[in-house]
Amino acid sequence: MTHAPLKVAIAGLGTVGVGTVKILQQHADLIRMRCGRPVVITAVCSRDQNRHRGVDLSNYQWFSDAAEMATQANADVIVELIGGSSGIAKNTVEAALAAGRHVVTANKALLAHHGLALAKLAESKGVSLNYEAAVAGGIPVIKSIREGLAGNAVTRVQGILNGTCNYILTTMRQEGRGFDDVLKDAQRLGYAEADPSFDIDGVDTAHKLAILASVAFGVEVNFNAVQVEGIRHISATDIQFAEELGYRIKLLGVASMSLDGIEQSVHPTMVPLSAPIAHVEGVFNAVVTDGDAVDSLMQEGRGAGEGPTASAVVADIVDIARGIHLPTFGVPVEKLKPSQARPMNLHTGAYYVRLMLVDQPGVFADVAAALRDHKVSMESMIQRVREPGESVPVVITTHITSESGMLAALDAIAKLDTVTEPPRMIRIESA
Amino acid sequence: MTHAPLKVAIAGLGTVGVGTVKILQQHADLIRMRCGRPVVITAVCSRDQNRHRGVDLSNYQWFSDAAEMATQANADVIVELIGGSSGIAKNTVEAALAAGRHVVTANKALLAHHGLALAKLAESKGVSLNYEAAVAGGIPVIKSIREGLAGNAVTRVQGILNGTCNYILTTMRQEGRGFDDVLKDAQRLGYAEADPSFDIDGVDTAHKLAILASVAFGVEVNFNAVQVEGIRHISATDIQFAEELGYRIKLLGVASMSLDGIEQSVHPTMVPLSAPIAHVEGVFNAVVTDGDAVDSLMQEGRGAGEGPTASAVVADIVDIARGIHLPTFGVPVEKLKPSQARPMNLHTGAYYVRLMLVDQPGVFADVAAALRDHKVSMESMIQRVREPGESVPVVITTHITSESGMLAALDAIAKLDTVTEPPRMIRIESA
Repeated sequence: MTHAPLKVAIAGLGTVGVGTVKILQQHADLIRMRCGRPVVITAVCSRDQNRHRGVDLSNYQWFSDAAEMATQANADVIVELIGGSSGIAKNTVEAALAAGRHVVTANKALLAHHGLALAKLAESKGVSLNYEAAVAGGIPVIKSIREGLAGNAVTRVQGILNGTCNYILTTMRQEGRGFDDVLKDAQRLGYAEADPSFDIDGVDTAHKLAILASVAFGVEVNFNAVQVEGIRHISATDIQFAEELGYRIKLLGVASMSLDGIEQSVHPTMVPLSAPIAHVEGVFNAVVTDGDAVDSLMQEGRGAGEGPTASAVVADIVDIARGIHLPTFGVPVEKLKPSQARPMNLHTGAYYVRLMLVDQPGVFADVAAALRDHKVSMESMIQRVREPGESVPVVITTHITSESGMLAALDAIAKLDTVTEPPRMIRIESA
Repeated sequence: MTHAPLKVAIAGLGTVGVGTVKILQQHADLIRMRCGRPVVITAVCSRDQNRHRGVDLSNYQWFSDAAEMATQANADVIVELIGGSSGIAKNTVEAALAAGRHVVTANKALLAHHGLALAKLAESKGVSLNYEAAVAGGIPVIKSIREGLAGNAVTRVQGILNGTCNYILTTMRQEGRGFDDVLKDAQRLGYAEADPSFDIDGVDTAHKLAILASVAFGVEVNFNAVQVEGIRHISATDIQFAEELGYRIKLLGVASMSLDGIEQSVHPTMVPLSAPIAHVEGVFNAVVTDGDAVDSLMQEGRGAGEGPTASAVVADIVDIARGIHLPTFGVPVEKLKPSQARPMNLHTGAYYVRLMLVDQPGVFADVAAALRDHKVSMESMIQRVREPGESVPVVITTHITSESGMLAALDAIAKLDTVTEPPRMIRIESA
């Protein structure tokens, strides 16, 4: 094993880039001890060289073109912290790998869309493509699955992977407020973007889930197979009913392996209070991995922010310094199986359904008949409010049933004259 | 990197040994794919060759002497699953390392007592000494700290590390029952040993904590510095008061780093319900690691049992097969700092105190005076029951105070005529 310094070039000096510089500077001695060799920054890249960033960058070669740095810097590792699934970020990573340089990236969109091609490129050059920071920030979940659970066939991986959504849902529950109201607050506090769609419509979670599924099941990343539903339609009423029924509503990414293929979906989910993941609140992230030997492993921590994300970036760099080199998605690219998507209509599970029904005698009989006709078996029914002649919420939970049956029943129910709003359905996930 | 098979010899065919054989047999293809080379069992060792164990061992060389197997088997890795801090287990591990063979072990007692000497031996021979299964069973906590958090200075590590104790405390709370009663049940159900002392007096937790502290802080393992207090004296009354005050009582191992040294202690602890670790129930284990960059990471899973423990053993073997070789405790032995113990009387924190006081006018004034005299500031006082002239429980919680002051105050309080039982003190840990 070499004792020569590992030379690192960092592209992108936003929050995470600066955080990475800070750790590598402040913990230089600690990291040298842990790696058996120094880890040194040699170059950085950003458009604006003059901005004050709170760290001393004067000893590093400065590039304004990241793709140029990827091939020209005096570096063993190129750290890509630019972001985005195409453009500069993609060009930089491709150029670095093609030049036979290791890459560390926090870019989930890039991995979700181009992970397979990039893994192939890395493998052909014999270099590492590490991306711990791309999923669940500071939580070492890629390492845990790819290495810590290497003796397991993973059967399911599920996660709270977007802190913005979890903050919104937590605040709605704790303060009994509506979605739009809490979103505005989150934007004001900097927890949500001005255009929040990427987070609240589930796209960010879907990127991360596609990566997790690939590592967990040894399949090609298949972002297009992820079925995505965000949290815009979750109401304070649903959250309150969930609480009453012993559940919390979380935006989960869930990937599960079955004989029919892999189901990948992102959707608001009711999780029982007995499940550890139900207690993951605020901006925290968590990943639960089920393996045939280990049973269930939960990891919880900060999914974003300067320190946690940089912690993951540095761990990836340290792995390279220590000579740890693994296939990008746990097995060589040629061994990755195509990700055969299991369509959601083959999903079976329990469901929560909220109807708005006109409160009049006999109205529920039609609903019950529609459920019966589609073989959906009710577990509970709650109608708390009585307002004869008015529209009131009625909540149903079901036993395990097929999604196709559930959807057909809801179609029929939606057509009833006494149903005044489209039914709301939320999947219930077992612990 | 070699593609030759990695040859494994397993000493000890109890639950975990058999579980390890099962995984290596059933997942042989998966593991070969993940390692880029086959992992094959070549030899096993146990005293009784004829016992039926539910796995086919006929293709392996059989040894009845583990230390002999350690040097004579056709193996690259010796897996030690015998247990115990001395005797056969120690001889086997020493012999294997001395012979230049990698060692994987689940033996916490051995590592806690002899970890430093064994790490030195492994290092001098350039082989790995892996022990993921020794701490928190299936949870990849050693890997997470040694690798996943390699960019962090760890400031505190705390864990629920003994499933037996957590099961007992959880059941006491859920069913409102006393310690002795629940312990008997746990013994009947196989969750506690006939001689439960090792678990319930905190020794097992202390072994694991000493190992965690070494990896987390880069110091020599120092089991003797762990201050240990078990759960025998926890009463149903304390658990009920804890609940009322917004806490759960958990047996925690806590190691924290300060300028005065490292405090390592195992004791029943009140943790706020807002802390994720408060929700770790039953036989589950959890470890919370605080790092300066990552903030706080919690990992929760099964801490014992065939599958989870074997999962960790196999992960250690897979690391060796993949060529991952790290210093035993994260840094080379010569870089490990002596573990300077911070005595518990320098501890500062909040406290829960339960007194049994004769219910008569003015009785509390003497208690309050004793607290004041030792600079202990009360946060709350609860006396629910009124029985004039009888002994009733009175519960006090304090603001942050020094342990020495707290103990001196309790000494004074214990001497009061109106105090009918020795005061009970439980430390409160912040989230």
